[in-house]
Amino acid sequence: GLSGDLNAPVSNRVRKSLYPLVPYDQALASVIEHTPVLSPTKHNVSEALAGHILAEDVKALDPVPGYRASVVDGYAVISTDGPGVYPVAQVQYAGSNKESKATRLQPGTIARVTTGAMVPEGADAVVMVEDTELVESDSNGEEVQVRIIVSVRCKENIREIGQDAAVGELIIEKGSSVSAAGGEVGLMASVGVTEVMAYPHPIITILSTGNELVHFSTPAPLAPPFVRDTNLPSLSTAIKSTMPYCTIIAAPSVAKDTQDSLYTLLKSAIESTANVIITTGGVSMGEADMMKGVLEQRLGAQIWFGRVLMKPGKPTTFATVKDANGKTKLVFSLPGNPVSALVGYYVFVLPALRKMAGYASPHISSVLATLAHSIQLDSRPEFYRVRINAETKAGMPSTRFIAYGTGSQMSSRMLSMRGANALLKLPGASDKVKELKEGDVVEAYIIADF
Amino acid sequence: GLSGDLNAPVSNRVRKSLYPLVPYDQALASVIEHTPVLSPTKHNVSEALAGHILAEDVKALDPVPGYRASVVDGYAVISTDGPGVYPVAQVQYAGSNKESKATRLQPGTIARVTTGAMVPEGADAVVMVEDTELVESDSNGEEVQVRIIVSVRCKENIREIGQDAAVGELIIEKGSSVSAAGGEVGLMASVGVTEVMAYPHPIITILSTGNELVHFSTPAPLAPPFVRDTNLPSLSTAIKSTMPYCTIIAAPSVAKDTQDSLYTLLKSAIESTANVIITTGGVSMGEADMMKGVLEQRLGAQIWFGRVLMKPGKPTTFATVKDANGKTKLVFSLPGNPVSALVGYYVFVLPALRKMAGYASPHISSVLATLAHSIQLDSRPEFYRVRINAETKAGMPSTRFIAYGTGSQMSSRMLSMRGANALLKLPGASDKVKELKEGDVVEAYIIADF
Ligand code: NWS
Ligand code: NWS
Repeated sequence: GLSGDLNAPVSNRVRKSLYPLVPYDQALASVIEHTPVLSPTKHNVSEALAGHILAEDVKALDPVPGYRASVVDGYAVISTDGPGVYPVAQVQYAGSNKESKATRLQPGTIARVTTGAMVPEGADAVVMVEDTELVESDSNGEEVQVRIIVSVRCKENIREIGQDAAVGELIIEKGSSVSAAGGEVGLMASVGVTEVMAYPHPIITILSTGNELVHFSTPAPLAPPFVRDTNLPSLSTAIKSTMPYCTIIAAPSVAKDTQDSLYTLLKSAIESTANVIITTGGVSMGEADMMKGVLEQRLGAQIWFGRVLMKPGKPTTFATVKDANGKTKLVFSLPGNPVSALVGYYVFVLPALRKMAGYASPHISSVLATLAHSIQLDSRPEFYRVRINAETKAGMPSTRFIAYGTGSQMSSRMLSMRGANALLKLPGASDKVKELKEGDVVEAYIIADF
Repeated sequence: GLSGDLNAPVSNRVRKSLYPLVPYDQALASVIEHTPVLSPTKHNVSEALAGHILAEDVKALDPVPGYRASVVDGYAVISTDGPGVYPVAQVQYAGSNKESKATRLQPGTIARVTTGAMVPEGADAVVMVEDTELVESDSNGEEVQVRIIVSVRCKENIREIGQDAAVGELIIEKGSSVSAAGGEVGLMASVGVTEVMAYPHPIITILSTGNELVHFSTPAPLAPPFVRDTNLPSLSTAIKSTMPYCTIIAAPSVAKDTQDSLYTLLKSAIESTANVIITTGGVSMGEADMMKGVLEQRLGAQIWFGRVLMKPGKPTTFATVKDANGKTKLVFSLPGNPVSALVGYYVFVLPALRKMAGYASPHISSVLATLAHSIQLDSRPEFYRVRINAETKAGMPSTRFIAYGTGSQMSSRMLSMRGANALLKLPGASDKVKELKEGDVVEAYIIADF
């Protein structure tokens, strides 16, 4: 809330903001419009690829399985031989037939095989060990003759070469996400894909501003007029949970409320490897609006909006600026109030991060939630913090999301974020509608698991 | 699927499994029963605390705000003075009044203040700058007289000391989760809490077993009889996405299919710092069931179940074993089939990890999903991989989850995990019900975002 340089005269204070109040949807559209998609880069196939969007079609380089493999522990047979007593002519373990290359199974004989073992040529089915009996073993205890009790169909219990994935088969389409559930990583690895082109995840710098701020680990008691910088840890947490593969570079220090301090720290962030710079504080109403002024006048940034018709987050500012190499950097100047900064991350920054990382839809997931109680509407459209419970009751046709408010929604009150896992997108009050009622259904942006 | 030591005779092969087929719910209950909750430890308050469960009530050590703070940029006034022209008697910036301690505001004067600045004693409200006019400034351009246009109520635009959080106030209850959304971390930091007691997240070792296995980064073409170890990267991905603060220690190597190799690697995992050991492979039907045998006979582990009536994952085995210091280690011996291993992680290991980490409910989240198409039931209850879309249509009372199958559900077919974000919990087929129909509603375990 600092209105210009502390040492500058204030008589020329602007008493009304120069920035129009832009509706949220329009502001978000502007963010998305000016956010570049990052250029795909080569990535190793490993767990660190989770959550990335593939920039190429991925095809199987090797078949899975790579050989005719038994699905069970048992005996490889020639299915037309049928039940009966047979000599055990060979044994195949998974991975064991490197040296002793399997010889062709002759009619009237069987081969002992384990799950995953190579089925010898000639055999066309495998009988489970449970469906057999030992008839004779030698003096070393090795099986000599075994009774096959059941009939098996041709191909039964055998995985054919390439049955799970054939060579050249398109296994994951360009534009797909590598799921965090683990399937795609395992799938790519299984077919010999060790590297893929994928969209990188952005590098982010967080810069807190304010003369009053001290590091968040400063122990109590803290004497006035100091305030702990809580935006750094709360934004870091939000980034790590929503975009775990983004790199966060902490700014070297909090910016002081001087144009020079802001300029120096912003300039070095712009010239760093960061793709995105998140600042908090110093954007509220004032004669010089220091953050905006430094961005526009000293750094040559283009400010796309400087105020948004929303609560919290009215002074939220979004700019783009080119670094010395002509590379576009995004600057999100969020309000200093702790809740405003965090909400601003979810509703503006996260969609931009998703677009940069190649997501087809930049929008964060939302559900329709049912209000557990009435809510008084604010004059501004509001992102109202709630705890949503997924309630599944017998006889219900589907799971319902019931939304419980988190108390006073003041933008300094971090307690309103406690337990919150969603943001209701409430309209501003109108002459007709001043409150929403229990049971009303509202769109809710999901910000954490329930 | 290796049935005993490669060098041992097999005449004493057990042709029916010794382990009863246990229903899934009973098996899970047994896992939960034998899983200890880890002892709380001290944690720094930072983004690394996200997802942890607090083991103590957390109370505010400092009030927020720590001083009477202005909510806006404007002028601190004595509300009863009312509109009019007033001399600007002092200026207060956020963080600026360390040296120049604010002097009491006298009636008939006003103080210029910025958002977050300390409101001088005597003042009882703040007027926004937008609701004022400059009347006179001095030769340096500093404000001398300002017109207050509006009336303000007592306390308007002032945050009282402790209004957002009072000293000693219970801000987060014991047993609560530190949300990944960022609120709790910021909240604790704001009130001066720098350390808390919380449940640690378990340390996990992953041990793949099988003579056929080579490292997953082995480039194509891969000659038979080798298979890439894809369970290591897929399980690592799943752990990192569901429990990002668990530590994963990769086993020094894949275990060979010999009792000695298994024993050596398991023993060193048990005596390591790991709380949980996940093995894959070597648990299927056979005369000696090597993994189970080594666990029970050579390591003195207690096997709680060795087979589960489910698909995939029939041979899933769960054991506990004490290390040399008497500390209980959990051993999940999952089947080698890539899908079986991954599904086993979600339905057995993850609930155990959650219990160890202090979660009130160990169960992973589930929703009721509506089938997009009919599904043939297997004879065994099945965890059927699906992609769930949250579909929100105008006029619908709530979001519905529509489940689309991922094709053939063979447990070697990793493609069935591609795009999957949920596991349907299907019953086994009965004489009456052999398939579920489009539109039927089924419980679905969520394994990734939609
Ligand atoms: N006349 C006028 N005045 C106005 C507005 C207007 O329209 N007209 N708008 C409002 C709104 S409207 Mo809202 O979101 O819709 O509720 S934010 C908002 C606010 C934004 O002010 P800003 O300049 O961004 O931030 P400042 O630096 O002043 O800090 C703000 C607060 O947050 C604290 N703080 C800062 N950084 C941190 C940090 N890292 N950790 C912890 N706390 C921190 C800091 O101590 C201070 O108490 O100004 C108001 N003032
Ligand atoms: N007679 C009889 N036979 C039976 C059963 C029975 O009831 N009776 N049950 C079934 C079932 S029933 Mo199922 O989940 O309900 O579908 S698993 C299952 C299976 C489990 O066998 P297991 O001993 O655990 O595993 P093995 O080591 O044999 O490997 C299994 C496969 O997976 C591959 N593999 C291993 N590790 C890795 C890795 N790290 N990366 C990639 N692939 C890997 C490995 O190559 C092999 O193809 O045995 C079957 N055999």
